[in-house]
Amino acid sequence: MRNFTFHNPTRIIFGEGEIAALDAYIPREARVLITYGGGSIKSNGVLAQVQAALGERTSFEFGGIEPNPTYETLMQAVALAREKNVDFLLAVGGGSVIDGTKFIAAALKFDGEPWDILAKRVEVRDALPFGSVLTLPATGSEMNNGGVISHRAKGDKLPFRSDATYPSFSVLDPTTTYSLPARQISNGVVDAFVHIVEQYLTFPVDAKVQDRFAEGLLITLIEEGPRALAEPTDYAVRANLMWTATLALNGLIGAGVPQDWATHMLGHEITALHGLDHAQTLAVVLPAMLSVRRDQKREKLLQFAERVWNITHGTDDERISAAITATRVFFERMAVGTRLRDYGIGGTSIGVLLAKLEEHGMTALGEHGDVTLEVSRRVYQFAV
Amino acid sequence: MRNFTFHNPTRIIFGEGEIAALDAYIPREARVLITYGGGSIKSNGVLAQVQAALGERTSFEFGGIEPNPTYETLMQAVALAREKNVDFLLAVGGGSVIDGTKFIAAALKFDGEPWDILAKRVEVRDALPFGSVLTLPATGSEMNNGGVISHRAKGDKLPFRSDATYPSFSVLDPTTTYSLPARQISNGVVDAFVHIVEQYLTFPVDAKVQDRFAEGLLITLIEEGPRALAEPTDYAVRANLMWTATLALNGLIGAGVPQDWATHMLGHEITALHGLDHAQTLAVVLPAMLSVRRDQKREKLLQFAERVWNITHGTDDERISAAITATRVFFERMAVGTRLRDYGIGGTSIGVLLAKLEEHGMTALGEHGDVTLEVSRRVYQFAV
Repeated sequence: MRNFTFHNPTRIIFGEGEIAALDAYIPREARVLITYGGGSIKSNGVLAQVQAALGERTSFEFGGIEPNPTYETLMQAVALAREKNVDFLLAVGGGSVIDGTKFIAAALKFDGEPWDILAKRVEVRDALPFGSVLTLPATGSEMNNGGVISHRAKGDKLPFRSDATYPSFSVLDPTTTYSLPARQISNGVVDAFVHIVEQYLTFPVDAKVQDRFAEGLLITLIEEGPRALAEPTDYAVRANLMWTATLALNGLIGAGVPQDWATHMLGHEITALHGLDHAQTLAVVLPAMLSVRRDQKREKLLQFAERVWNITHGTDDERISAAITATRVFFERMAVGTRLRDYGIGGTSIGVLLAKLEEHGMTALGEHGDVTLEVSRRVYQFAV
Repeated sequence: MRNFTFHNPTRIIFGEGEIAALDAYIPREARVLITYGGGSIKSNGVLAQVQAALGERTSFEFGGIEPNPTYETLMQAVALAREKNVDFLLAVGGGSVIDGTKFIAAALKFDGEPWDILAKRVEVRDALPFGSVLTLPATGSEMNNGGVISHRAKGDKLPFRSDATYPSFSVLDPTTTYSLPARQISNGVVDAFVHIVEQYLTFPVDAKVQDRFAEGLLITLIEEGPRALAEPTDYAVRANLMWTATLALNGLIGAGVPQDWATHMLGHEITALHGLDHAQTLAVVLPAMLSVRRDQKREKLLQFAERVWNITHGTDDERISAAITATRVFFERMAVGTRLRDYGIGGTSIGVLLAKLEEHGMTALGEHGDVTLEVSRRVYQFAV
């Protein structure tokens, strides 16, 4: 096991009916900006529950934060928050809304051009306090300090993180997910699955607990993902998915182990260029990435095959191939295509994708830093 | 899954050489009281590392906190801290030292007789800030807010907990455990094992992640415990044990599930009356407890048998019996006796133990509240 620091101060308030608990965790005198996405929280009753919990507090609303939230939209929220003298942000939505709200919180306290937080990796030292009401289990943003923001004009999609951007609390009520479109559940399951794989499928460092936890989360997704599609109002299934997605990226399973993240970086460029959903890009890139790098990941791929997929027969190479195929089949069972051609994209994009990777400094990715542009080219080619 | 709140703000700094990191997490101007136990931290070099990390800070020492820390001893530390105007406590040791330091921290800010925190369960609202350097993986006290304190004069051993008594940080350096006596490693493994069981072996509530995490921790203890005895300086083994013991009782695996804790309560009375090590009492009580309550715990015992012990043949009753036996054999393999008679105690003590349970209000224990004094009597009798 490698040395690590683990610190996650976010309070999780989990379960049916818990939106009412907001009242206990937001200061009485707070001026609150509620941030949200496309407006489904109005039709499904979540916004009404939030407003009831806020009671007499002064609150404002900023809607329209898009999937892959953009700098352009978020800076409008920054302007509104300044105009209204807001001192607490409440994100109500999924990972995009929460990521975006982290950026708003940081930008409000940032001295300079906030895009530099992404483009120049300028450190965020302070942020407005904020909480979240999660309505889409997927990204883990509700219990971590990171976000990914896109710049529409520049065609960039870049990550940031800071100790100042942990939500002070997040409310996870599984019933808020009942009305989600199937596509969002599918995407969430794939997203959480790949988050776990990025921290697990590298090389062994004798970190037994982290491995067992990662495997437990993967098995839960494999068991519950298809059930979540088939039985949208099964509380236990939605609760297990929601807690799994949070634990997939709250720092716990990644503490003390090598991490990869090359799949995410290659995926971000596909979203930036072609507008695919984040999870769709992961479903496309991961099987290709594992196939191209199967030798570097050999030991963990064999462990993944045995412990997660129960594959115990055949040669080492056969078991590895079977595990990669099982992963692809699982994504497709979740109704997420795993080839670029499933989204109408051919090999002609690869040159532009590689140029963007190079522009963003993504030329030595992965747990060994050996995912060069040439390796990325093979992954994209394999993914067509 | 049941509704829950999970919030654990303790920062974990894990790995070889990390005691030096204390410098980053204790205020520069702090007046520090270092608390410790029997003095092994002087002979094994840990105290010297701590002092080097504290540098120019003003510090004082309070040693002699005993296993099963007593009110009488801890109140001496409170007096010293007041006399020296201490504003930060640093516990260096195992669970007893950290538990004791939590009580000192609370007592220093408590208005009234501090024993009331235990005896009358008066709420702790404030505590002096404190951190820990863990040298004995066992209790999880380094990442939770609870403690157990004994009153020598009264013969009581009682728990407390408070949001104010989370360590602000804990340093976990596995190499500090190399010089531990085998008995303390054995005790630590049994203690962590039973902590997990208290939160896992109840009844199913479809909490798949909590179950998988608990099983992963148990399997790690079963794999690494005997190796820790055989190879005391194997870093990977000690690291896995240390992180497992912390995660066994930091609130994570117990969030959203029923909990038992009857084994601990019956064990506390044995320690108070006969002075057995805490873990020895758990090793005695747990197999008896599972045997007496096997019908109430049937479904989880079958899951425990299959997933933790790989027991898949035989009738339900045979598999349950085999799992309980495997647990007993594991404790004995860790060189911890599992019968009262192994410690020279016979059935004549049972009356006094039951009277103490009654005096402490422990008459409806367990996840169903159905462990009456009569059930406890059968457990103690089974344990002889």
